[in-house]
Amino acid sequence: MSNLTGIAASNGIAIAKAYKLAVPDLSFNKQTIEDTENEVNRLNEALEVSKSELEKIKEHARASLGEEHAEIFSAHLLVLSDPELINPIKDKIESEKVNAEVALDETAQMFIQMFESMDNEYMRERAADIKDVTKRVMAHLLNVSFPNPALINEEVIVIAEDLTPSDTAQLNKQFVKGFTTNIGGRTSHSAIMARSLEIPAVVGTKEVTSVVNEGDLLIIDGIDGQVIINPSDEEVAKYKQKQEDFEKQKQEWAKLKDEPTISSDGTHVELVANIGTPEDVQGVLNNGGEGVGLYRTEFLYMGKNELPTEDEQFDAYKSVLEQMGDKPVVVRTLDIGGDKELPYLELPDEMNPFLGFRAIRLCLERDDIFRTQLRALLRASTYGNLKIMFPMIATLDEFRQAKKILLDEKDKLVEEGTEVSDSIEIGIMVEIPSTAVIARQFAKEVDFFSIGTNDLIQYTLAADRMNERVSYLYQPYHPAILNLVNNVIEAAHAEGKWAGMCGEMAGDSIAIPILLGLGLDEFSMSATSILPARTQIKTLSKEELASYKDQLLSMNTADEVEAFVREKTNQ
Amino acid sequence: MSNLTGIAASNGIAIAKAYKLAVPDLSFNKQTIEDTENEVNRLNEALEVSKSELEKIKEHARASLGEEHAEIFSAHLLVLSDPELINPIKDKIESEKVNAEVALDETAQMFIQMFESMDNEYMRERAADIKDVTKRVMAHLLNVSFPNPALINEEVIVIAEDLTPSDTAQLNKQFVKGFTTNIGGRTSHSAIMARSLEIPAVVGTKEVTSVVNEGDLLIIDGIDGQVIINPSDEEVAKYKQKQEDFEKQKQEWAKLKDEPTISSDGTHVELVANIGTPEDVQGVLNNGGEGVGLYRTEFLYMGKNELPTEDEQFDAYKSVLEQMGDKPVVVRTLDIGGDKELPYLELPDEMNPFLGFRAIRLCLERDDIFRTQLRALLRASTYGNLKIMFPMIATLDEFRQAKKILLDEKDKLVEEGTEVSDSIEIGIMVEIPSTAVIARQFAKEVDFFSIGTNDLIQYTLAADRMNERVSYLYQPYHPAILNLVNNVIEAAHAEGKWAGMCGEMAGDSIAIPILLGLGLDEFSMSATSILPARTQIKTLSKEELASYKDQLLSMNTADEVEAFVREKTNQ
Repeated sequence: MSNLTGIAASNGIAIAKAYKLAVPDLSFNKQTIEDTENEVNRLNEALEVSKSELEKIKEHARASLGEEHAEIFSAHLLVLSDPELINPIKDKIESEKVNAEVALDETAQMFIQMFESMDNEYMRERAADIKDVTKRVMAHLLNVSFPNPALINEEVIVIAEDLTPSDTAQLNKQFVKGFTTNIGGRTSHSAIMARSLEIPAVVGTKEVTSVVNEGDLLIIDGIDGQVIINPSDEEVAKYKQKQEDFEKQKQEWAKLKDEPTISSDGTHVELVANIGTPEDVQGVLNNGGEGVGLYRTEFLYMGKNELPTEDEQFDAYKSVLEQMGDKPVVVRTLDIGGDKELPYLELPDEMNPFLGFRAIRLCLERDDIFRTQLRALLRASTYGNLKIMFPMIATLDEFRQAKKILLDEKDKLVEEGTEVSDSIEIGIMVEIPSTAVIARQFAKEVDFFSIGTNDLIQYTLAADRMNERVSYLYQPYHPAILNLVNNVIEAAHAEGKWAGMCGEMAGDSIAIPILLGLGLDEFSMSATSILPARTQIKTLSKEELASYKDQLLSMNTADEVEAFVREKTNQ
Repeated sequence: MSNLTGIAASNGIAIAKAYKLAVPDLSFNKQTIEDTENEVNRLNEALEVSKSELEKIKEHARASLGEEHAEIFSAHLLVLSDPELINPIKDKIESEKVNAEVALDETAQMFIQMFESMDNEYMRERAADIKDVTKRVMAHLLNVSFPNPALINEEVIVIAEDLTPSDTAQLNKQFVKGFTTNIGGRTSHSAIMARSLEIPAVVGTKEVTSVVNEGDLLIIDGIDGQVIINPSDEEVAKYKQKQEDFEKQKQEWAKLKDEPTISSDGTHVELVANIGTPEDVQGVLNNGGEGVGLYRTEFLYMGKNELPTEDEQFDAYKSVLEQMGDKPVVVRTLDIGGDKELPYLELPDEMNPFLGFRAIRLCLERDDIFRTQLRALLRASTYGNLKIMFPMIATLDEFRQAKKILLDEKDKLVEEGTEVSDSIEIGIMVEIPSTAVIARQFAKEVDFFSIGTNDLIQYTLAADRMNERVSYLYQPYHPAILNLVNNVIEAAHAEGKWAGMCGEMAGDSIAIPILLGLGLDEFSMSATSILPARTQIKTLSKEELASYKDQLLSMNTADEVEAFVREKTNQ
């Protein structure tokens, strides 16, 4: 019996046997082939089998996880149909008279190295796609079985070095009770997937694959980040109790599903959700979301070869608005560029993509793209309670330009006889320090603010949150962040506007009391965080928390802030 | 006669004939060589001639421009002696029996492509070095003359697509009266060099090399960014007058060399200079600098294969302190990493180097490097008026850690019997928004602030100032910047501390009235900006400017701020 400590990535307790997701031996020999036609046929067969497998996995992912998560397999299918990759493999077989395995491996390696060396996130993802797909085709050429987690048919806890997007997309909640990995953090892809699937996960254990054997009994504690290997009977009993307690707590949370969010002294705040696709709306409603605080529209633009049409976008926006009824839906206009690239836009590489040509900066220059999105939004506006917000606003000029374009398109639509809502609020993300600093000036012109803390923190501290060497500077409780957040809220209220927050911080149990005390009106978070947050807020007195404001804003360090809040709220 | 408008990069007027700095035709044929030994000898000769030329140019640069600017040629000489580059060329001649030109070109191209694809600023510079050096060697192989601007022996205005570091390092002020280029901006290398040489320059004309013919008469107006091609007699007369006026103005400025900087209503502020090496000190004193506001210590670490020793550093710091006498010298500790890499530190590539592992972040982890620098500074402290400041401070914890290490080393030195000054002020750069926001908290613990606007602006607006697509967001007059600057100054004064500024903004004629009104105590700028700034400040009433404070801080945009200041100060 021994324990491992990792990062609690998705809460809950799971107890089951370990299932190792290992990559099979794909080694092969180089052979000289005389009958190259037959060899090309072998390759074609392996490609076809791989394609039909991927089609099935894609359908499975779409059904269990939604459109967004299925898109990764569209990308994989595109790779398998890409003549620029496939033809050179066939040419190699024919001209060099080598077996298909050699031709596949050498060609794929060439592309992988080329794409990886490009130092461009999009191309690196393509390299990862090619790697993933090549392994599958190679397994079929070699007639060895390739792990398809979709085939798991008994209760297990999956252990792996890391889970690829295609692995997680195949996990069936009925059998996969949880997972644990060697690498990853709370915001890594597999952690986000675990929360979306609502299965417990502990990531970043560093060594789970080397210390656990296939079939070992495991306990995954996704609340405290523990993995217990071959536990004693007492431990099993203890964790079964913890599991029951957690289930009870979830049932308690569920009772608040249709209740408003009201502090112990009677202040109502809005708890809303961040979504990426229309498929996510059901999760918002199931978890008692009072609206959508951030609809990221990027997924409409990704995993494709061209821009989405106005009608495609209209359908997506209409679907979200209709499903949400009269509940508010805040749609963020396209936040692409920088690290999130679209191949068909052919943007130049940048030295510092997080400080680069992206979001509103790109939309104001490429206003054809921007106008198409705005028209789709305006046309959908009559189907619900739409609010539009612009990302990465750094100057008032940018907001004025963006708003002007929006009103232009509205006028055109009205002239064309299209009905457009007259009550669309127009707001901005506050995620750039300059905007937080002069929020007073902005508050006179915008209808609302939504503070995007993920970016605001990284710019305010000048630390790339994806860079492990400086990630210790990603400090949500840094007194400078609290001062900026306070400045934004005060500025909004002085002009009778509302202020929300749509970063990770809005769902954090230390941040929630601070934000409630500062007067935040709307908290937007992962759907599964809403009920725990509602439960917490019902126990908090806004008046008491507000009385700590000056003290908190004058503190020296994030640690001081955290210790103070823990003490005052018994956490 | 026609005019071109560009970017005024270095002020003054020059009138002279155009001298085109063109790259010679370096095309060659591929030949099969039987006598490869002779071919290797040809290569060796070309390498030797190139080396001795570079040694001469390096000496010339050292004498006319100082150590820092000569370092580029040390890098070029290293390339020519690098067996990893040279041996493959020789191998190629021998194994492929090709002429030296082919072997040189193919080998160099391979390295250049490899280094360029690395997407790492340091390696890109190495690629540029190899390109630069290869051309010179190729010219010698082909027996064509390679442009050596050092050889210019009549009065000219140099025109070029752009000037490389090796070009600018060769310019002889006696003959080169000015230059103008197609590309570049106010902060590009060639612009900075022009100001350091004090010769007029207009950069970014886009087409000067295509519209000007060799020998055309040119007027360069580096004050207003104009290039007049084959001017009329009246125009020549007009610009000779402007030139005379400018010279008179410079003489007026020079009268203020030994005067303190006092506003029209009697407030004294300190005008000090930014320097990079001990050789820069003479320019500071010649231009009436009241001290050094920013001594960048990076040059000590660059263009080498290993870290500078404690003694090497001690010598440099002592030299600067001794030359400055009792005038203050603010030394910034090592600001390396991120985009400014040192090959011998082997730092990993970063996605966003400006938001990465650099400066104090690196120094706190690699405290061996940090302690060596601090010991050298402490040992030098008795030779003048030393102040030490830490770069990239984002949290109070970082300052406390850095200060503790400094005091540790001081204790050790004192214990060892080394004399250390007891009056060293310890301050920080304010260049990260978080620090500007909670300056009140910092002011209780630091001795002074120096606001580094170059970085502060790019982080506050979340825009990489080196990225042309977003460089419009580099807005020194953005009201958010003014609010942060004001916050820092007020925080300092509330605790009886002083606040300076060492970014480009401190020497800007629109910013100076604003900063004076906000109460900035110390302005650190290029040495050549000091006398014009002193002249301007003598005409400004601090009290009047201070009365505009609330109005300026509440403005909406940078344009509003600029227009207001222009109106109030008749600019």
